[in-house]
Amino acid sequence: MSKITYDSALVIGMGLIGSSIARAIKEKQISKKIFAIDRDSEVINISKNLNLVDAIESDLNKYNQQFDIIFICTPLSSYRDIFKQLNSYVNKTTLVTDVGSTKVSVIEDFKESINNKKILFVPAHPIAGLEKSGPEFGFAKLFENRYCILTPIETQSEITRSISDIWESFGMNIEIMEPKRHDRVLAMTSHIPQLIAYSVVGTATELESQMKNEVIKYSAAGFRDFTRLAGSDPVMWRDVYEKNKEAVLEMLGRFSEDLLTYQKAIRNNDLKYLEEKFIKSKEIRKIIEEIGQAGTFDPTEKN
Amino acid sequence: MSKITYDSALVIGMGLIGSSIARAIKEKQISKKIFAIDRDSEVINISKNLNLVDAIESDLNKYNQQFDIIFICTPLSSYRDIFKQLNSYVNKTTLVTDVGSTKVSVIEDFKESINNKKILFVPAHPIAGLEKSGPEFGFAKLFENRYCILTPIETQSEITRSISDIWESFGMNIEIMEPKRHDRVLAMTSHIPQLIAYSVVGTATELESQMKNEVIKYSAAGFRDFTRLAGSDPVMWRDVYEKNKEAVLEMLGRFSEDLLTYQKAIRNNDLKYLEEKFIKSKEIRKIIEEIGQAGTFDPTEKN
Repeated sequence: MSKITYDSALVIGMGLIGSSIARAIKEKQISKKIFAIDRDSEVINISKNLNLVDAIESDLNKYNQQFDIIFICTPLSSYRDIFKQLNSYVNKTTLVTDVGSTKVSVIEDFKESINNKKILFVPAHPIAGLEKSGPEFGFAKLFENRYCILTPIETQSEITRSISDIWESFGMNIEIMEPKRHDRVLAMTSHIPQLIAYSVVGTATELESQMKNEVIKYSAAGFRDFTRLAGSDPVMWRDVYEKNKEAVLEMLGRFSEDLLTYQKAIRNNDLKYLEEKFIKSKEIRKIIEEIGQAGTFDPTEKN
Repeated sequence: MSKITYDSALVIGMGLIGSSIARAIKEKQISKKIFAIDRDSEVINISKNLNLVDAIESDLNKYNQQFDIIFICTPLSSYRDIFKQLNSYVNKTTLVTDVGSTKVSVIEDFKESINNKKILFVPAHPIAGLEKSGPEFGFAKLFENRYCILTPIETQSEITRSISDIWESFGMNIEIMEPKRHDRVLAMTSHIPQLIAYSVVGTATELESQMKNEVIKYSAAGFRDFTRLAGSDPVMWRDVYEKNKEAVLEMLGRFSEDLLTYQKAIRNNDLKYLEEKFIKSKEIRKIIEEIGQAGTFDPTEKN
């Protein structure tokens, strides 16, 4: 892959992902200058203190320049406003991509808000994350060896290639997918596990208070894995369930049916059924480790 | 704490936990000699090759000696046979403890199988683990800063103190609990998260094959956290659901009700409800990190 260098990049939303992108742009020298926008004054301060970008403002209109490439890294509920602002602001050809967890809704918002032909948008979803939120937790390596799914709106092969090159330069493996399929697959790999994690943690918080304290105390027994997911940004996730409602409800229905069969097996002492199911699940884990998508868990504490 | 040294320790079951105990005994010099039993010839070979113990046999009767302290580290379904064997084998005062994930059933099995007064048994549950099974994955540090719950059968304060000292010497924090309470708390912190993890992974395995491949491929989006739990030993878990049936079914009922309220909120676009619940869950995560029970997750791959 040849070296790409742009003059100016803009990151909208300097949370975990946005700030990781800013770091990756710098590390991989994708752009000479990196600018950012965030509405949160604390995020602005942290970004300045950590020297993550060349400049950061609270609003696009505070800038007096155009950009070559723009990354939208905000919760899904703010996309429409951002698209509308870009629609009137952009006056030179600009590549735009995003990191949103749903893609059908993003494309709808785009089509409803943008008629500016200088905006060349290719929706993206880098499958990478961490349970932390905020610019202080981002890091450039977050994207390495992870997949980035692109869901191009039309067959704009040249633009898609340019956007793809940028994500690839961060160390990602690029996949092209239909937006609708993306939303179904991600409902299962991401939105359902996340919702269930929230729900398990929620169940625990509603236990009588002594029991609740004990659940927290002995969380190393498995519960803590669910709290890890439940540590991510609440607003981001709230938006995901609004925007990917249909697929989430479908997969949730399947999950609930399956859980009922386990419940029935436990009630009926059907140990053979349980063991067979558990063995199958263990095999899936093995595959995920083999393809290098398992991450690394250390059960001890970092000091 | 004063240094305890026994002459001979026996570990029954050299899986992840048993082999970690063997390593901890050696590292902390709890016993001059360490012996082991495992029915699996591969486990015997690995234990020998790794030099984990002074001797390992496939059955207790192959030994021609007594022991000072015995650790039972096998799936719960084998406890009754092990207790019966110990009942006839032991002829000198012997401390016995275990690592079983349920405690009511263990105490029942003990009472039904043992009338040998030389066996001084204090049930234990070290809250420490990993998704791997097998002696090659054990390590002594597994127990450090983790809780060990003891559920003494009678008020045998002196024996409990001796057993407690051993677990403490591995770096564990000791808690005494009623067996019934233990089983309820662990249903919520361990048995339910585990079952749900199996169930989510199970749902994914039953999707049409292309979809299934994609779920595995993009598992870094959250799904992989569930597969980590689902990577543990199927037989061990099968037994847990048999032995802690009542508490598991109760907690499962609570969880299913809660999940339904989330489902309804998504269907009705009740974003406020979702956000509030998500914020509460995030707070629980924070507490678990603060009390040092979160473990350390690295989203990148170890090479």
